[in-house]
Amino acid sequence: MAAVYENENIRIEIEESEIPWLKIFTQHTYKEMSEVPREIRMEIYDLLDTIEREMIDHYAPDKINIASFGNYVPHVHWHIMARFKEDSYFPEPMWGTKQREASLLLPDIGEFCERLVSRLKEA
Amino acid sequence: MAAVYENENIRIEIEESEIPWLKIFTQHTYKEMSEVPREIRMEIYDLLDTIEREMIDHYAPDKINIASFGNYVPHVHWHIMARFKEDSYFPEPMWGTKQREASLLLPDIGEFCERLVSRLKEA
Repeated sequence: MAAVYENENIRIEIEESEIPWLKIFTQHTYKEMSEVPREIRMEIYDLLDTIEREMIDHYAPDKINIASFGNYVPHVHWHIMARFKEDSYFPEPMWGTKQREASLLLPDIGEFCERLVSRLKEA
Repeated sequence: MAAVYENENIRIEIEESEIPWLKIFTQHTYKEMSEVPREIRMEIYDLLDTIEREMIDHYAPDKINIASFGNYVPHVHWHIMARFKEDSYFPEPMWGTKQREASLLLPDIGEFCERLVSRLKEA
């Protein structure tokens, strides 16, 4: 998967999904968040905050969801998702029981990512 | 549920589970993390970091999992869980498909919480 954005510390990727869903990986492989140098942890939290604000602004979702598991591949990464009442899993997490067959009509994630990258490059 | 620890900004509760699982709530009801004042966001991230380190030290889990959903009740809260290869859902998230009937033998969470609270009061 090509990175939407990257620097020496982190990279951001798109998760293919019916909902807007991005993932932030550390460039170096750390197993747990507490092993990540504080400066990079703070950068990740700032990125989650920026992505959340941009998702709310662009998609007006019903809720933002954030998670870091890494049980299959022990490399710290964060998921950030814009959730909608009519998506396939709401109000369950995206890893939960499917609730319905959804057919969301959402603005293109490519345009969202362009805007996000402009915002990150400004900062 | 009685709080394990609280101050004017946050409270920490235990989620009843086979695994060590704590939740951090903001005292004031915010829907999204980006609505939480920066100072309290940073306090939450520091708490997640402290709890993660204490869980690793006390339980030697296979992985730490962290998540913030709030789809049922739109009040920002964070889950932090110590996961084990032999728990009922591993490697799936705790919201995923059950993998097995587990019978974990873990140190008591009461003792863990006492140690955590001492650590938080020192800080």
